[in-house]
Amino acid sequence: MSTNAPTSPTVRPSGRTPADLRPVRITRGFTRHAEGSVLIEFGETRVLCTASVEESVPPFLRGKGQGWLTAEYGMLPRATHTRSPREAAKGKQSGRTQEIQRLIGRSLRAVVDMQALGERQITIDCDVLQADGGTRTASITGACVAVHEALDGLVKAGKLPANPMRDFVAAISVGIYKGVPVLDLDYLEDSDCETDMNVVMTGSGGFVEVQGTAEGSPFSRAELDALLELAGAGITRLVAEQKQALGLA
Amino acid sequence: MSTNAPTSPTVRPSGRTPADLRPVRITRGFTRHAEGSVLIEFGETRVLCTASVEESVPPFLRGKGQGWLTAEYGMLPRATHTRSPREAAKGKQSGRTQEIQRLIGRSLRAVVDMQALGERQITIDCDVLQADGGTRTASITGACVAVHEALDGLVKAGKLPANPMRDFVAAISVGIYKGVPVLDLDYLEDSDCETDMNVVMTGSGGFVEVQGTAEGSPFSRAELDALLELAGAGITRLVAEQKQALGLA
Amino acid sequence: MSTNAPTSPTVRPSGRTPADLRPVRITRGFTRHAEGSVLIEFGETRVLCTASVEESVPPFLRGKGQGWLTAEYGMLPRATHTRSPREAAKGKQSGRTQEIQRLIGRSLRAVVDMQALGERQITIDCDVLQADGGTRTASITGACVAVHEALDGLVKAGKLPANPMRDFVAAISVGIYKGVPVLDLDYLEDSDCETDMNVVMTGSGGFVEVQGTAEGSPFSRAELDALLELAGAGITRLVAEQKQALGLA
Amino acid sequence: MSTNAPTSPTVRPSGRTPADLRPVRITRGFTRHAEGSVLIEFGETRVLCTASVEESVPPFLRGKGQGWLTAEYGMLPRATHTRSPREAAKGKQSGRTQEIQRLIGRSLRAVVDMQALGERQITIDCDVLQADGGTRTASITGACVAVHEALDGLVKAGKLPANPMRDFVAAISVGIYKGVPVLDLDYLEDSDCETDMNVVMTGSGGFVEVQGTAEGSPFSRAELDALLELAGAGITRLVAEQKQALGLA
Amino acid sequence: MSTNAPTSPTVRPSGRTPADLRPVRITRGFTRHAEGSVLIEFGETRVLCTASVEESVPPFLRGKGQGWLTAEYGMLPRATHTRSPREAAKGKQSGRTQEIQRLIGRSLRAVVDMQALGERQITIDCDVLQADGGTRTASITGACVAVHEALDGLVKAGKLPANPMRDFVAAISVGIYKGVPVLDLDYLEDSDCETDMNVVMTGSGGFVEVQGTAEGSPFSRAELDALLELAGAGITRLVAEQKQALGLA
Amino acid sequence: MSTNAPTSPTVRPSGRTPADLRPVRITRGFTRHAEGSVLIEFGETRVLCTASVEESVPPFLRGKGQGWLTAEYGMLPRATHTRSPREAAKGKQSGRTQEIQRLIGRSLRAVVDMQALGERQITIDCDVLQADGGTRTASITGACVAVHEALDGLVKAGKLPANPMRDFVAAISVGIYKGVPVLDLDYLEDSDCETDMNVVMTGSGGFVEVQGTAEGSPFSRAELDALLELAGAGITRLVAEQKQALGLA
Repeated sequence: MSTNAPTSPTVRPSGRTPADLRPVRITRGFTRHAEGSVLIEFGETRVLCTASVEESVPPFLRGKGQGWLTAEYGMLPRATHTRSPREAAKGKQSGRTQEIQRLIGRSLRAVVDMQALGERQITIDCDVLQADGGTRTASITGACVAVHEALDGLVKAGKLPANPMRDFVAAISVGIYKGVPVLDLDYLEDSDCETDMNVVMTGSGGFVEVQGTAEGSPFSRAELDALLELAGAGITRLVAEQKQALGLA
Repeated sequence: MSTNAPTSPTVRPSGRTPADLRPVRITRGFTRHAEGSVLIEFGETRVLCTASVEESVPPFLRGKGQGWLTAEYGMLPRATHTRSPREAAKGKQSGRTQEIQRLIGRSLRAVVDMQALGERQITIDCDVLQADGGTRTASITGACVAVHEALDGLVKAGKLPANPMRDFVAAISVGIYKGVPVLDLDYLEDSDCETDMNVVMTGSGGFVEVQGTAEGSPFSRAELDALLELAGAGITRLVAEQKQALGLA
Repeated sequence: MSTNAPTSPTVRPSGRTPADLRPVRITRGFTRHAEGSVLIEFGETRVLCTASVEESVPPFLRGKGQGWLTAEYGMLPRATHTRSPREAAKGKQSGRTQEIQRLIGRSLRAVVDMQALGERQITIDCDVLQADGGTRTASITGACVAVHEALDGLVKAGKLPANPMRDFVAAISVGIYKGVPVLDLDYLEDSDCETDMNVVMTGSGGFVEVQGTAEGSPFSRAELDALLELAGAGITRLVAEQKQALGLA
Repeated sequence: MSTNAPTSPTVRPSGRTPADLRPVRITRGFTRHAEGSVLIEFGETRVLCTASVEESVPPFLRGKGQGWLTAEYGMLPRATHTRSPREAAKGKQSGRTQEIQRLIGRSLRAVVDMQALGERQITIDCDVLQADGGTRTASITGACVAVHEALDGLVKAGKLPANPMRDFVAAISVGIYKGVPVLDLDYLEDSDCETDMNVVMTGSGGFVEVQGTAEGSPFSRAELDALLELAGAGITRLVAEQKQALGLA
Repeated sequence: MSTNAPTSPTVRPSGRTPADLRPVRITRGFTRHAEGSVLIEFGETRVLCTASVEESVPPFLRGKGQGWLTAEYGMLPRATHTRSPREAAKGKQSGRTQEIQRLIGRSLRAVVDMQALGERQITIDCDVLQADGGTRTASITGACVAVHEALDGLVKAGKLPANPMRDFVAAISVGIYKGVPVLDLDYLEDSDCETDMNVVMTGSGGFVEVQGTAEGSPFSRAELDALLELAGAGITRLVAEQKQALGLA
Repeated sequence: MSTNAPTSPTVRPSGRTPADLRPVRITRGFTRHAEGSVLIEFGETRVLCTASVEESVPPFLRGKGQGWLTAEYGMLPRATHTRSPREAAKGKQSGRTQEIQRLIGRSLRAVVDMQALGERQITIDCDVLQADGGTRTASITGACVAVHEALDGLVKAGKLPANPMRDFVAAISVGIYKGVPVLDLDYLEDSDCETDMNVVMTGSGGFVEVQGTAEGSPFSRAELDALLELAGAGITRLVAEQKQALGLA
């Protein structure tokens, strides 16, 4: 297996080069009630991310002077190629859903200062309107903007002296597809790759989460290194998009 | 109580006259995977309606040569002014959700010829992205377009000789607000009206469902008549919008 | 379709004329523990309605000086022609059950003065012992008597100066059966009618709920008017039965 | 502790002597749809017992040429002194409910010949309309009559050559109340007894179930013997009531 | 049927005589976190019993100056000959599980002085690592030792002046197997016996629970007497084992 | 932060050097019914891993000539320092439980040839008897031995020509504790580390899963590299233990 992929002629169904992201679009204020509301698109993947502020914390944190942030994730039944059963109708969330919403929550908690937030709670909702691979990475990347927006609102309302988000956080998938390390897998690639990795990083380049899975045969250390390098470059571009969406670039 | 409302100076928070609908927008093809996909907007209420076709029917209908149509309804947690708990996380759908999805299903079954549909099932999903009153009426009105679109697809694919939808169906709310019968209640009106009625009618003016509820004091026969008249006019305009969206006007 | 039905020779399986109610029987004190306990029979339909008084209100109402009233509905598994699964064993209430119990609750709240009730809660339980059509209308009609009885008890016990029920409330079904508008559908009619409507009205003739559904083809305004007229006459007789059962006639 | 109770002046709240049953009433045909339907009353305890026949067996028994019998038990929410939550609304049956319905099923299976029944299933439903102690023993005793009735129907319909019930089965509670062994505990006794035992026996005097529990201090072998003797006499009288209800006495 | 079994040549698959217990082993301190932790073995049946102490009581007991004791029971999925579904994955505990854990709780509450325990709660967990019949009787017998151990710990920690366990409690099964009353049924016997009885007794010989069930034909009073006698002898030996395990023999 | 930790004086509560594993013990045949049954101990963490063979596959795989392997995970309520609620009693598995059991399943599927397995299913159950950190890594490492044992049994029974496990698989945790990269975190370290990573590798050194999480501040690429190196060395030793347990070393 060759891993000097970035220069080889593309194997990707979309015609992208291995290091290409799909077009990223971040639309702020997509809905009007939430304190932060962002539609994020990674190509054909579209996720609505809202951040809701509540002026209280769960019982286990009361009186400790710190805040909390939690996340929920859902997929509309027909976001997918064929219809998936509605989780509310089945009466429970799948293991996959729970994994993803726990990941989103951890990722955002890594960059928000809970002391500075004070005794209030941010609830993130990431709902997938259309899925084409990468829904969890788009969710994290969009949620960061929505949370930033909601925290800015608290500053504007005089409830916080400064935005308690210490750094940006974004996420991207990488994988070995037909022997080539590629960035930002779409559905066709995701369904047929040998190794799949989701990487969550901060704007300053620190790792928050690394989750790599061998779908077929195990992957080598050299492949892991190639994937991490691709991911790092992708995160840099995503953070630039986040800043631009927030008018900070 | 005076019911000669349509000519009195408006009492509505939005400044609409009693017989005004909110602006209606119907966007076809809002998502790409579903056989029918429509975003419908009644002012600030926005509902994504998809129609999914499956080439089989539930067990109780197998071998009977007829089709089936069913509907599910959901509200994104932050579609509302304050965040509502996610039904998938709570592990059950509320009574309100079940009432609405049963209503949507009955309304659409009233206009689709199940024999002509053949042994296939249409599943409608109505998911509220943003709520400002009238989510169930917008759902029915949008679902009609999505189902029509999905059925057109079956005709184009040669699976059906003709579209088995016999008539259009649309829905609108009416109510007594500050003593005046008004059409198409928004959230402010809905929270504060004396009587609330949802009316589902066909394009040719037949009633499919009439559901009126006295929220405060009981309503009179004269009030009921005034509400039904307003609703009829509203439905006529909604069916025109449906036809235009489908290129049939 | 002819709607001048009341004079035509009967089409009804029971031999009733279109405007006939089934025999109504209201037995007070059917069980001994509840503050109000009524067995109501609409022909072969038999529902046990109890009203339970609790000297506290749900958390969302505490300290507001007003009361609350809620209702639950159930059907014994073999109340029906063939056995239905027990909802407690299935682990959830059907959408139909939830619709009905919400309707019962709204109907009774429309006639009880919550301020006058004070900080206490009335819970209505309507359990169908035998079903032959019209279980929801019998439930509302019987529950009104049970609640009245329970409130009388509070007056007798010196806890309330006067009965806070402002008016009676009763319910009846009407429908188009074989082209003829008929009153109080039994199971055979209910399974085979074109339009089915449940009407809830007060003793003074105001509408509390109107819920009409086209089971087959849509219904016209003329049919709706004919049905409402039949319903109004039926309600008048039911309220007379309620008053007699309470010794107020 | 003295156990020569039967001759001592009564300690029972009801004034009964220790060996007295409460008045027993068995009303056949209480509801009309079930193949067997019995209202049984042990004093103020009233249970509706129905037996439903289905012409098929659960998957694990298919093709084995034998039948099955199962039971479910429920209590109306206001059958009790204070209202109990509805199990269907809570979404699960309590441990107590499950224990009782398993006991009813085992008791009846002990007297019905499953081979002779053939590939059909009997489902017993015991629903408590009013509770005053002894609901499980009344349920078993009433269910026996309902099942007999349903099986007689199969014989009359020519589906079975003879009734496959081999013997009668009845149940009664006994307990040590204020130091005295007593028969058929009512609610007041049940709430305050030292030992509580439910005994299920056949018409010919064999034991089907013996379930004794020390509520306070342990009980002795002598007490156990006294209780079993009381129970045996009670069962004899109950079986006589069953036979009379079935016209077999 | 002959019941003078103890002297007849054995019919038992294991070769035991009718009055033989399987080898009993009680291992204290099997796990380290629980306040009491015991592995009990009845032959090939192995149950891990832990007792957890919590310095508070459920809401319904707060401020009453007394303690509480409750029990839960579980079976590892592959404790059995073929794998049983995991109850946590199915989302509910079976009726059998609930029956057993209620029995364990009642049995232990019978010998612990709740007043002397003070406002604290003991939670027993009995988890079956390997099943070969008699899991509920082993659970009760082992739980008694674990609870004693936990209570001793409270005495050593100076939280209680004396151990509030008033007596020992143990349990054993007895049954009629191939016409012979036998003690301590293993899986082969349990699956094929005519009558099965679980007996819970105190160290001083009082009965706490007697639960006998006719699996095939009813059992006679003589058989019941023979079974109780066998059980009494078994309990005596089990209590001796408990004392030895606790260093009290 | 310094990451040249392996030579610095130890910071670990247990006194281990950074690259030390806890003592590993693998006991085969711990229970008798399962086709594979292993107790694995990583220090004070003890997990019972069983592998159950079923001669059929789930519906979605029938007739495809390949096998399936799935895993479930549970923790006894008092495996932990303070008692955790029983998932079967709560009625659902936590998100953490689902994450872990999905991870165990993926890890084992990576090394078993599903084609060679044929149409049969292996179900792994990992039940934690005692927890002291690292329960998921111990589960994977023990499950590998249990599955190998079960597959050996199929070979011995002549059902398979050769063991379809292609390679060994083991798992270990690594983390940054007080600034030092350490191997195999125990509970004290796990509760207080800055970065936590679980690594699953094959016997031949390929990666199957890498899951790293920043608990406090993000981690750097240099730290990631140091952790992966530690993990690799640990896996090598674990695979040696697995081979020795299976008599293959």
